[in-house]
Amino acid sequence: MIVVNFKAYKESMGKKAIEIANKAEKVHKETNVFVGVAPQIADIATVAQTVKIPVFAQHIDPLEPGSFTGHILAESVREAGAIGTLINHSERQLKLSDIYMIVKLARENHLFSCVCANNPSTSMAAATLNPDIIAIEPPELIGTGIPVSKAKPEVVTDSIRLVRRVNSKVTILCGAGISSGEDVDAALRLGTQGVLVASGVVKAKDPYAIIREFADASKPYVS
Amino acid sequence: MIVVNFKAYKESMGKKAIEIANKAEKVHKETNVFVGVAPQIADIATVAQTVKIPVFAQHIDPLEPGSFTGHILAESVREAGAIGTLINHSERQLKLSDIYMIVKLARENHLFSCVCANNPSTSMAAATLNPDIIAIEPPELIGTGIPVSKAKPEVVTDSIRLVRRVNSKVTILCGAGISSGEDVDAALRLGTQGVLVASGVVKAKDPYAIIREFADASKPYVS
Amino acid sequence: MIVVNFKAYKESMGKKAIEIANKAEKVHKETNVFVGVAPQIADIATVAQTVKIPVFAQHIDPLEPGSFTGHILAESVREAGAIGTLINHSERQLKLSDIYMIVKLARENHLFSCVCANNPSTSMAAATLNPDIIAIEPPELIGTGIPVSKAKPEVVTDSIRLVRRVNSKVTILCGAGISSGEDVDAALRLGTQGVLVASGVVKAKDPYAIIREFADASKPYVS
Amino acid sequence: MIVVNFKAYKESMGKKAIEIANKAEKVHKETNVFVGVAPQIADIATVAQTVKIPVFAQHIDPLEPGSFTGHILAESVREAGAIGTLINHSERQLKLSDIYMIVKLARENHLFSCVCANNPSTSMAAATLNPDIIAIEPPELIGTGIPVSKAKPEVVTDSIRLVRRVNSKVTILCGAGISSGEDVDAALRLGTQGVLVASGVVKAKDPYAIIREFADASKPYVS
Repeated sequence: MIVVNFKAYKESMGKKAIEIANKAEKVHKETNVFVGVAPQIADIATVAQTVKIPVFAQHIDPLEPGSFTGHILAESVREAGAIGTLINHSERQLKLSDIYMIVKLARENHLFSCVCANNPSTSMAAATLNPDIIAIEPPELIGTGIPVSKAKPEVVTDSIRLVRRVNSKVTILCGAGISSGEDVDAALRLGTQGVLVASGVVKAKDPYAIIREFADASKPYVS
Repeated sequence: MIVVNFKAYKESMGKKAIEIANKAEKVHKETNVFVGVAPQIADIATVAQTVKIPVFAQHIDPLEPGSFTGHILAESVREAGAIGTLINHSERQLKLSDIYMIVKLARENHLFSCVCANNPSTSMAAATLNPDIIAIEPPELIGTGIPVSKAKPEVVTDSIRLVRRVNSKVTILCGAGISSGEDVDAALRLGTQGVLVASGVVKAKDPYAIIREFADASKPYVS
Repeated sequence: MIVVNFKAYKESMGKKAIEIANKAEKVHKETNVFVGVAPQIADIATVAQTVKIPVFAQHIDPLEPGSFTGHILAESVREAGAIGTLINHSERQLKLSDIYMIVKLARENHLFSCVCANNPSTSMAAATLNPDIIAIEPPELIGTGIPVSKAKPEVVTDSIRLVRRVNSKVTILCGAGISSGEDVDAALRLGTQGVLVASGVVKAKDPYAIIREFADASKPYVS
Repeated sequence: MIVVNFKAYKESMGKKAIEIANKAEKVHKETNVFVGVAPQIADIATVAQTVKIPVFAQHIDPLEPGSFTGHILAESVREAGAIGTLINHSERQLKLSDIYMIVKLARENHLFSCVCANNPSTSMAAATLNPDIIAIEPPELIGTGIPVSKAKPEVVTDSIRLVRRVNSKVTILCGAGISSGEDVDAALRLGTQGVLVASGVVKAKDPYAIIREFADASKPYVS
């Protein structure tokens, strides 16, 4: 499972969001590996109209429809075409009670919930809230090109161990610094089920080539 | 000038956002009164593709493109089709330094900036930042159907007086509780150049009829 | 274990904070039941100089000493005389990663950590972070006089069950609406080790009498 | 006017807060220059009991007494001995409507209000709210030892010019990077009425000597 977070990069906004989403879809078709994309909120509709791979929101707010201005609702991103959402990314951290509420709202609105966590302890805490996916990302490695799966393998293995104590079903991804097939292979060998990547793909000279490299590295682990 | 804030209401989300936007456009065509709409972020693209009236974002973040997740960028809403943005709505209040930065980013990205303020003093403070529009909305009247222009005319006139001391050009709207043509007339007679409305339109049985009523009440004031 | 949160009430600020703390100490001396007090930050020093019962901060920030203005540090409240701190009270909710960091900082600074949680799921999540105390408080009952221990006993028992799955040692308190000895008895009978109270004591005509009533209700459960 | 912000530095916490406050008072007695101190909230009471120079809070919340936990109230810091408060420091930035409310609460509670602002535009906006003092601090210079009064004199003069357009009475301070008498002299020559300093004093080998140097540099400007 590969989820590409488009963040707020110039290289993955608007028309360029569609271009990268098309490349991700191409890799999915060629390899049958799960590749999802998380564009900016305003790009969800156009991306979801263009590709058939899963589209995630980068964030939703802990709110049901009502008198709120400037917020992002589960219903809204769902209707725009998202099938899941990131939650609590280290660049958009949330209150504990809000993570709980968003996981609940995601479930009620048929959105996959992917809760990000910054260390093994918070990964375990997040796992008790029963999201569909946990993504472990040490914030100090984000955007560095130093892969967590190689630089801090113990963060990944500790997280898996603590998460599994309280949740046997949740899918576990890891992220931060992933920029080659080798990094993906290291992540999967440690016991994760996939990766959450951003600059490694978006800032690459050839995003198609790097997504394909990630997918090829994942294939041996797909049952 | 009539700006309809769609907020996060069920009645103005997704397909229904397009329906109300179509009605607003119809009124604009019939009356030539300026009618803008502010749908949820995920609806901007589809609304802007459907209608030719001005589309506003409900909020943008004080950020340039970069490594940010779950934020709303000026560039992004602009490319999706927005021509302006609400800022500091009482349901999405912002730090003073962020309001300054967002007004600046809006200008650089050719978005009209509409800064909302909750009382005469904060309206004056906001006006010093040189946005295109100031919208005065006493939060205690929002959604009540009790129009600020009739219940608290002194809030409107004090705001106009203080704003004009520091800014002779900014367009001044008022909002909160506006639900009839009479309320719009009262607002314009007090010296505002238009209204910011939400539930008065969105929750109305016949949104077209009410927008039309607002526009008809505005016509005598259009030079 | 009885912890009295003084909140920001007029009745428990400054000199009045010292008065209530004196009454709490009197009850402790008479009954030997553990009674702690959590005054406002600016009152910690004078309260801790006056009484010998445990003083808690109401909040600390997730920061080590450094270039920060207007924040509350573990070191600072410790030196002022606090021996513990509330964390994540429903009136001061925190990001998951900040709760983790504050529990860690509290431990390093020899402060007891009391993490508040609003429902059974968030109580379980908080318990994975290994604080000394978990306090369960459904926010909708705070200040109502309707005791969680009687109105929503299942919230208390579910919380205990989920917390114990991941943490066998943490002390469990419950709060919200506790205003009589009977409420305290109900709380302890459900399996908690004490109560977190505020308006029930602070707003009482005779705070001494009510703390004493709470302590008397607790006595049978003290081993 | 010299205000020393103790921030959350180890060197100015608890007992060390009292030591620096004593030194500041000594300088005041020797030179008759106004020297105020802003210790951490938990230190206000003990500092105010020890010295007779003005004590400021570093922050207060926009709240009247009530059911709030972990917040800092005007009443509370006032009763603890503060006579003023910093507001909106760049390390504790606030919403526009909260700045308005805090200036109002400060006035009602007989606290001097010192609103910090990060650039000329936000200084002007803050000045419309009629605080007693505006302190201009470009955040990028804070803690650098590069004085705003010399590195960016135009920030200071532009701020004074814009502030005076809307407010003829407010006292204007500048801060960030001030670390010598020469910097203070530069600040006053540009037209400010004093300085807001932190690390320049707190981290100095001899805080007494540096405060004295600041006061001596101020003397020629005291009418």
